[in-house]
Amino acid sequence: MFKHGGTMNKSFLILLSLFLTLALAGTSNAETTMSQEGQYIFNSLGFYIGGVLVAFMAAGFCMLESGLVTTKSVSTIAAKNIGKFAICSLIFFLVGYNLAYGVPEGGYVGSFTIWTDTTNTETGYSGYSDWFFQTMFVCATASIVSGAVAERIKIWPFFLFAAIMAGVIYPISMGWQWGGGWLSAAGFSDFAGSTLVHACGGAAALAGVIVLGPRSGRFTSQGGKRVMVPFAASSIPLVTLGTFLLWFGWFGFNGFSQLAMGTFDDVNAISKIAVNTHLAGAAGTVTGAALTRLLGGKTDIVMMLNGALAGLVAITAEPLTPGPITAMAIGSIGAVIMYYGTKMLENFGLDDVVGAIPVHMFAGIFGTLVVPFTNGDTNFVTQFVGMFSVVAFSFALSYLTFITMKATVGLRISREAEKLGTDKAEVGVTAYSIRD
Amino acid sequence: MFKHGGTMNKSFLILLSLFLTLALAGTSNAETTMSQEGQYIFNSLGFYIGGVLVAFMAAGFCMLESGLVTTKSVSTIAAKNIGKFAICSLIFFLVGYNLAYGVPEGGYVGSFTIWTDTTNTETGYSGYSDWFFQTMFVCATASIVSGAVAERIKIWPFFLFAAIMAGVIYPISMGWQWGGGWLSAAGFSDFAGSTLVHACGGAAALAGVIVLGPRSGRFTSQGGKRVMVPFAASSIPLVTLGTFLLWFGWFGFNGFSQLAMGTFDDVNAISKIAVNTHLAGAAGTVTGAALTRLLGGKTDIVMMLNGALAGLVAITAEPLTPGPITAMAIGSIGAVIMYYGTKMLENFGLDDVVGAIPVHMFAGIFGTLVVPFTNGDTNFVTQFVGMFSVVAFSFALSYLTFITMKATVGLRISREAEKLGTDKAEVGVTAYSIRD
Amino acid sequence: MFKHGGTMNKSFLILLSLFLTLALAGTSNAETTMSQEGQYIFNSLGFYIGGVLVAFMAAGFCMLESGLVTTKSVSTIAAKNIGKFAICSLIFFLVGYNLAYGVPEGGYVGSFTIWTDTTNTETGYSGYSDWFFQTMFVCATASIVSGAVAERIKIWPFFLFAAIMAGVIYPISMGWQWGGGWLSAAGFSDFAGSTLVHACGGAAALAGVIVLGPRSGRFTSQGGKRVMVPFAASSIPLVTLGTFLLWFGWFGFNGFSQLAMGTFDDVNAISKIAVNTHLAGAAGTVTGAALTRLLGGKTDIVMMLNGALAGLVAITAEPLTPGPITAMAIGSIGAVIMYYGTKMLENFGLDDVVGAIPVHMFAGIFGTLVVPFTNGDTNFVTQFVGMFSVVAFSFALSYLTFITMKATVGLRISREAEKLGTDKAEVGVTAYSIRD
Repeated sequence: MFKHGGTMNKSFLILLSLFLTLALAGTSNAETTMSQEGQYIFNSLGFYIGGVLVAFMAAGFCMLESGLVTTKSVSTIAAKNIGKFAICSLIFFLVGYNLAYGVPEGGYVGSFTIWTDTTNTETGYSGYSDWFFQTMFVCATASIVSGAVAERIKIWPFFLFAAIMAGVIYPISMGWQWGGGWLSAAGFSDFAGSTLVHACGGAAALAGVIVLGPRSGRFTSQGGKRVMVPFAASSIPLVTLGTFLLWFGWFGFNGFSQLAMGTFDDVNAISKIAVNTHLAGAAGTVTGAALTRLLGGKTDIVMMLNGALAGLVAITAEPLTPGPITAMAIGSIGAVIMYYGTKMLENFGLDDVVGAIPVHMFAGIFGTLVVPFTNGDTNFVTQFVGMFSVVAFSFALSYLTFITMKATVGLRISREAEKLGTDKAEVGVTAYSIRD
Repeated sequence: MFKHGGTMNKSFLILLSLFLTLALAGTSNAETTMSQEGQYIFNSLGFYIGGVLVAFMAAGFCMLESGLVTTKSVSTIAAKNIGKFAICSLIFFLVGYNLAYGVPEGGYVGSFTIWTDTTNTETGYSGYSDWFFQTMFVCATASIVSGAVAERIKIWPFFLFAAIMAGVIYPISMGWQWGGGWLSAAGFSDFAGSTLVHACGGAAALAGVIVLGPRSGRFTSQGGKRVMVPFAASSIPLVTLGTFLLWFGWFGFNGFSQLAMGTFDDVNAISKIAVNTHLAGAAGTVTGAALTRLLGGKTDIVMMLNGALAGLVAITAEPLTPGPITAMAIGSIGAVIMYYGTKMLENFGLDDVVGAIPVHMFAGIFGTLVVPFTNGDTNFVTQFVGMFSVVAFSFALSYLTFITMKATVGLRISREAEKLGTDKAEVGVTAYSIRD
Repeated sequence: MFKHGGTMNKSFLILLSLFLTLALAGTSNAETTMSQEGQYIFNSLGFYIGGVLVAFMAAGFCMLESGLVTTKSVSTIAAKNIGKFAICSLIFFLVGYNLAYGVPEGGYVGSFTIWTDTTNTETGYSGYSDWFFQTMFVCATASIVSGAVAERIKIWPFFLFAAIMAGVIYPISMGWQWGGGWLSAAGFSDFAGSTLVHACGGAAALAGVIVLGPRSGRFTSQGGKRVMVPFAASSIPLVTLGTFLLWFGWFGFNGFSQLAMGTFDDVNAISKIAVNTHLAGAAGTVTGAALTRLLGGKTDIVMMLNGALAGLVAITAEPLTPGPITAMAIGSIGAVIMYYGTKMLENFGLDDVVGAIPVHMFAGIFGTLVVPFTNGDTNFVTQFVGMFSVVAFSFALSYLTFITMKATVGLRISREAEKLGTDKAEVGVTAYSIRD
């Protein structure tokens, strides 16, 4: 009996430990880690929230551009912004998404096919939520162009360009990296798109500005030297509102580029990214204010706002590895680069109506190249190659597109239309009718 | 011993399997599905996020209407919008919610009682979060009216109408469906409210426009034919901002009308809805642009913005079952209907200041009737009956309310006040004082 | 055998119950309560969403102030708002956060050190997400000041004051309560900051308004009596937009001051807070409308908007314990206090450009003192002591800061600059250039 009992007890003890382990494994899973379904919901919700925030950027660009153009082109730029938001989304669905994300591993181009959802519970997130998020990125990329070429490009050629940008140019070069193509294989790093979105859009804007030429009367000659004539912005409060909306949008743009939210590590990363993004924008704002006050005598609101945006662009390539102080430094230098870049463009006689090229292209290039200082998995050469490839590709294809349109359907409004203003010439709706 | 041992082993094996099952059940639950508490939090959070997004629509309507009225009625329309946001919320708490959701199964009217929270952990979500979400819907419904009747309705009679709309008209007809009343029992389907919100609000707007008559000078006679005189919109950028805010609000309006977020299926549905909603709005925008360019020569920004809204309204009755291409088609047709509906109203001499009736009523009716094409659980007859009942009920009660007010407290401002502008006559604050 | 079997069965039954308990504990945990990781993610996500919503308030203040100043100071107030958003965030990182949250238990002052993240999985939320949320609060506090002192304070002295506010004044007095200092130990209660944010900011605004004096021409003498001269607001739609943005921001401001979202109780609290906050704002709006209509004859939009804000401020000290009807009453009384407070300031010859002092300080004081009516854990004396300490501290330090700046770097722009407008004098960018 005793022995038997002993045997039984031993068996019991063995089984007891087995059962306790299993039972506690169950308990412990329940108490410490997220369920698969929970992760799936968090990841999808992250894309949803991020997508809505990045959508704000469409409104932000619209307000910023509406405020910075002269009063006779405001309805037109509003029409371009809402139209582009729509067209880019439709095109990115029809072609675009699969061109980017269907690229073979280490390859160059995906497929020109309609996007379809292939979600199942194993993918980790709803495919629709991912498409929603990614679509808002292509809208942002095209937005960078519209401000730069404002007040002289015809509406429908602009829409055509936006479609090509959203359907071909951005998806191909973006797919090299985020689609798992050759740049990704080479070790290039661009967390949320200093190069893939901002420098890409900025390079397209530069091509447009060169092909179109400046607005009538923008530059005059004074003693043989080119002088820029200031054009009055229609509404500074709308520019400021637009910048705020862009800033808030960036919390989603950078934060949810983590692409997951269902673990300790992911939500920690998102939180740190939000803080670094915010501080880089803050440092850029202060730098814009200080620079103009120290160099020009007055505290220029437009340079503060573009300073904020340049700081935000600069941190976008790597918002996770820097400490907050480093993030501030990156944002601040981004704003300095934007400031001198703006002057440089003016000296070259290039008319970028809203400063899109210095903000998005120049600060974006800087942000990309500075990644190796904080992220040990990257190196300067690869960062340069990646940046240069994307910028060159975007500039070349955009330039080709613009000169082709110029030679065929026409790109620039007539002198008479420009004198009258695009609102009357092209949209037929005056932007403001204000009497007090 | 052996036999006994055998018996013991058998007992052990039985128990082992029992325990293992239980233990692994625990483990498996933890690893794959959401806990009840997690579901509750996700559902409540969904209502919260959705409610905040739908609240954006109040600001969106306010900006859209402020931008579309003439400059002498801007302060007034702003006052009406913030006032209506407040009044509808208070009334929907005091009476409204229980009138809608307290309807007997298959019945007609709930109870005129104050809303109270009856949440417990079994309900699946916080009752307050649900009230918060639903309240923003009634605010949206009343917003549809204010734009249509702008510039000639008196402020306080409008507030009274908003209270009746939020406290009686909307809750009763909405309760027929979402409260589980007779329409729901009949098999009517209206996912997020093409009929219950948009056509209902649009029908009330139509009643108001008929009773009030057009603004002074809006129509003249030319060779015996009625001709509409264009009135200049005060600010197109604000109209555009308003449309963007409405568009973003729609992500919550349609997305979280899924009413749950705590499972794979729910978050998948929300994500698909967000994409379909976005694409329908995008298709509506492009349709508005293309129609006006092809038919009228110029690309009309207002028709683009109203096209976006009509597309969003049209997809609202069923944003889940269509594929994305079908969603685009629905949005596009919604915009076409809005375009011709706008012309039709003008021909009838009806003065709908912002185009609320074609956008919300006409596109809402279309969206409701088109549901059976993608949702096999519905049929055209039931959809028509549901739509017609709600529209007729809303129009009849609104008409009755407006003519009663006209005969008693007065509805329309005096000719002198209209000449002076409602801002000076009723609010005493000029909207703009801009000098450059 | 039987006995043995019986013994074995007993052992089995004991162990069975043990194992079943453990196993079911695992199961039950999985099925009913949130995992630790899930709670952590929800809490961090709550801070993230709340932070983004409170960030909206920065844009809201900017729009509200841009709309209420005269047209010649709009660029300047926009520059101050974006600059302050940046500066306060940088300073609160460098000093501020640790000054508030590093206070010894029951103590007075924390440490002047840079914030560093000390997150681990046990803290319950990402430290970065908490910093992000809290930073937006300090930005709101400083925003209250900028509107009151608009149109005559120099830009850079204002920026210096904002830095002192964000780095010293707000953190110290806020740390007394939320940092676990002496007020918290004394039993003071201020859920989301009627005193710690709003009355604190309002008291600083009052100090600024006193030291600066009124704008030129704001008050004249008529028969020996001081008479206020109305100054035209530049844009009422922007004031309205700003109020809507602030209102939406308040959903995050109050809601996520629950500081957790990962349990039934927390999400229920957040939901109830959202409803109470909304209803208090709604009641304040209606009260503002009714008061001005009944007392002044016209329905004043500005008093409706400030009524909304006063209602929101008043409910902020305790948005959880009141029932919704009580929340309405608190919001309504807050608006009444704001109305008479505005008249009182005018009678004293104090020029608060946007009504920041009556909205934030007076309604904030009321909200703080009314807490004991619904929250039994508080008493009037402690509430008064807490409110008075913070208000006196903020006023005294702000006054000292302003008079020191006045005596050294200069505080007020020159008479010539004021005549010209700060936009031309200090920013060099005219706010509007609108021609129709």
